[in-house]
Amino acid sequence: MNMQKPTLPKGTRDFAPEVMVKRNFIIQTIKQTFENFGFLPLETPALENLNTLMGKYGEEGDRLIFKILNSGDFLKDIQPEHLAEGYKKMTWRISEKALKYDLTVPLARFVVMNQGKITFPFRRYQIQPVWRGDSPQAGRYREFYQCDADVVGTDSLICEAEIILMINEVLQNLGLTEYSVKINNRKILAGIAQTIGMPQAETELCTAIDKIDKIGKQKVEAELAERGFPAEAIAQMQPFFAIQGDIFEKIQQLKPLLQNSEIGTKGITELEQTLELVKHFCQSDNFISQNHLDFDITLARGLNYYTGAIFEVKVHNLAIGSISGGGRYDNLTGAFGLPNVSGVGFSFGLDRIFDVLEKLNLFPAHTHTTTQVMFTNFDQTAQNYALSWLQKTRKAGIKAEIYPQPVKLKKQLDYANQKNIPFVVLIGSEEMEKQMFSLKDMQIGTQQQFHFEEMIAYIKKNSNNLV
Amino acid sequence: MNMQKPTLPKGTRDFAPEVMVKRNFIIQTIKQTFENFGFLPLETPALENLNTLMGKYGEEGDRLIFKILNSGDFLKDIQPEHLAEGYKKMTWRISEKALKYDLTVPLARFVVMNQGKITFPFRRYQIQPVWRGDSPQAGRYREFYQCDADVVGTDSLICEAEIILMINEVLQNLGLTEYSVKINNRKILAGIAQTIGMPQAETELCTAIDKIDKIGKQKVEAELAERGFPAEAIAQMQPFFAIQGDIFEKIQQLKPLLQNSEIGTKGITELEQTLELVKHFCQSDNFISQNHLDFDITLARGLNYYTGAIFEVKVHNLAIGSISGGGRYDNLTGAFGLPNVSGVGFSFGLDRIFDVLEKLNLFPAHTHTTTQVMFTNFDQTAQNYALSWLQKTRKAGIKAEIYPQPVKLKKQLDYANQKNIPFVVLIGSEEMEKQMFSLKDMQIGTQQQFHFEEMIAYIKKNSNNLV
Repeated sequence: MNMQKPTLPKGTRDFAPEVMVKRNFIIQTIKQTFENFGFLPLETPALENLNTLMGKYGEEGDRLIFKILNSGDFLKDIQPEHLAEGYKKMTWRISEKALKYDLTVPLARFVVMNQGKITFPFRRYQIQPVWRGDSPQAGRYREFYQCDADVVGTDSLICEAEIILMINEVLQNLGLTEYSVKINNRKILAGIAQTIGMPQAETELCTAIDKIDKIGKQKVEAELAERGFPAEAIAQMQPFFAIQGDIFEKIQQLKPLLQNSEIGTKGITELEQTLELVKHFCQSDNFISQNHLDFDITLARGLNYYTGAIFEVKVHNLAIGSISGGGRYDNLTGAFGLPNVSGVGFSFGLDRIFDVLEKLNLFPAHTHTTTQVMFTNFDQTAQNYALSWLQKTRKAGIKAEIYPQPVKLKKQLDYANQKNIPFVVLIGSEEMEKQMFSLKDMQIGTQQQFHFEEMIAYIKKNSNNLV
Repeated sequence: MNMQKPTLPKGTRDFAPEVMVKRNFIIQTIKQTFENFGFLPLETPALENLNTLMGKYGEEGDRLIFKILNSGDFLKDIQPEHLAEGYKKMTWRISEKALKYDLTVPLARFVVMNQGKITFPFRRYQIQPVWRGDSPQAGRYREFYQCDADVVGTDSLICEAEIILMINEVLQNLGLTEYSVKINNRKILAGIAQTIGMPQAETELCTAIDKIDKIGKQKVEAELAERGFPAEAIAQMQPFFAIQGDIFEKIQQLKPLLQNSEIGTKGITELEQTLELVKHFCQSDNFISQNHLDFDITLARGLNYYTGAIFEVKVHNLAIGSISGGGRYDNLTGAFGLPNVSGVGFSFGLDRIFDVLEKLNLFPAHTHTTTQVMFTNFDQTAQNYALSWLQKTRKAGIKAEIYPQPVKLKKQLDYANQKNIPFVVLIGSEEMEKQMFSLKDMQIGTQQQFHFEEMIAYIKKNSNNLV
């Protein structure tokens, strides 16, 4: 039998109540902000057909997708000679389903399957787990939540502007103050590649300069040389590396550098129009002047996928990667036979945000507790008396419980302490006689007698419970 | 390449926004009620080790568990002779992870892994998807949500009473009025088996009489005969079948029938004590007198697992199975080497509840819409003017969006209609000049001019948006 000490699969986690409350705070904040911007919830199953996912994330992605073994006798049609064909071919013989790898391919599949029913532009958000067979390491898991928002079916730059505002709003609502929403445009990157005479090597250029934050300019230049960029091309990069100042100064410096590239100039125009729209949105409440928006021509986000705006969020003074990224794409559903569907979207990483709020001590007080009051249990008489008051406390909207057995008071108080329950009600014969309740504040240790309604008001006033 | 028209795996579903809003209403109601009763959230991963799950649900369960193919070259150590050993043995060679099948075994695993850290009694709830390779049919899916609540580590009957109250509270909060919370006790069933001289056949007795609602008394008797129950035993069942009346009358009729069975008598005592506690909880607000609580000696819920109270919820006048079930167990964690952990809990089926509310038309108005107001887009001037007011509308806590392109007004209004957006703002040159806003009520078709603050107040007052 299975009498082993149980364990969890590598790279997966349980979320105990004290962690769940904090995760729920983040999810709730994101959800409310997304809905405030008119995005609607979508959920897709964990299981997708294997052929929906395979080939969408490159060879490495194909390898990291978790495949589900077919139910029943999956060996029925397997012959010994099939073994020799290798595991990749075998996968298709014994598996037809897989766990979703991100929320974008399922969105594309949903859009194609429901194109007749969806009202476009389709503004949807999706907060769900995804699975990747990566080697687990600090901050990287095999099962983790993504929080995506996309507008599908329009190329209006209003959507870019709204996404910038919405990202900013989420971060503000989470209590963050020191961060940059970085933007760039894939067309600007194409323009740079063109201008330095390497239009065919745009992808390599992006991959290399994307690392400048981590490895510095010199190493990026070395990598470009290694990737076959001639010395003149690298020399021509210098004016681009030298761009500096605020977002408008950078744009002014970039314009003449890209004047001979049509696509580069288009990228700058898109960026300027987006900023113009952000200004119209914000008016006096000027988001841009708060220095939260930054233009970074080295922002590339590897993926070939993006065709216009690119976004990323960096929290200052923390050794943690970006907590959000996204951009404009022109071909969401091409792989499923529906061409020319344009959209723009981004994704928050729940774990990264969690780590940031934890390190900066930004979780609000109400995420440190859930149950607001515990009734103690002296003996059967007091217990039976307490039950109806417990129920009335709950009806008053207060999260409440009773210790289910009349064990020693110290044990009951330890329980309340360990669960961070801020108040404890003590009911003895005196309290029953006077119809009063002794309320103990578990943080400061004081004890006060109240009539019932007073007690309810006191608990409500003094427990920061908003969940 | 994959240019196939995409599909979903059998038995899985997408939840489009209009469905998600309703599902979220159910989940939110359950969550709030559970937390009001002092239950705290737990989440466990979708992935569990294969050996955590296998052997816990019987042979049929083992077959229905979805197994994950190992990452990388899973054929590395497979020899042709392994094929001949059959797929069951092969499963263990090429798979070490699986998708969780319910929320109870993961709870048991969590309790064992964290026994040193958990504060007992452990009151946790868990609302997550589970996966089963059953044949999909109406109302049965391969990926579906369970909503569990359990108290682990105490045998206090207060927990049984609280669970009865909590189930009732959830149903009330969902707007249900015609339902029964049915209770029974496994010890009473054991007592019946003993009394009719078939103590060894308790499981068979439970399996058969559990179906009486569906197939009727005669067929149950036929099944008992088939299962080897002698005619005298079946004859001795008659007084049990004849029990009727309200919950207290039934108990009084049952008592003499079980007087020679120690375990049966213990079951009755537990039931009576639980009812006594429910009464203490409710006082004047008498839950029992509302006829929502019913004692049903044919309620058995198949599982051998339960050792005390058994619960089930039946909605009247609907051809739909039970929407909730649960009970007391004495050996949650035995399979993981930790004996004698007692607990009591139950589970709501999200899909069943959804179907019930849909059929009874009980979803509240605010679940029919999410975005509260849409700003139309006449031309670039009006659009840029509108953006700052849109942002102010959002800051006022209203869910709002703008149509992102200045297309024909009819198309914009169709979009709002299809998305059930109740209000639309029209801004033309007249409105801009007067700093007024024309608000169109999409349901009744009227249009009114407002100053901004008036408009905000009007939308808040007239859109039932609580989410």
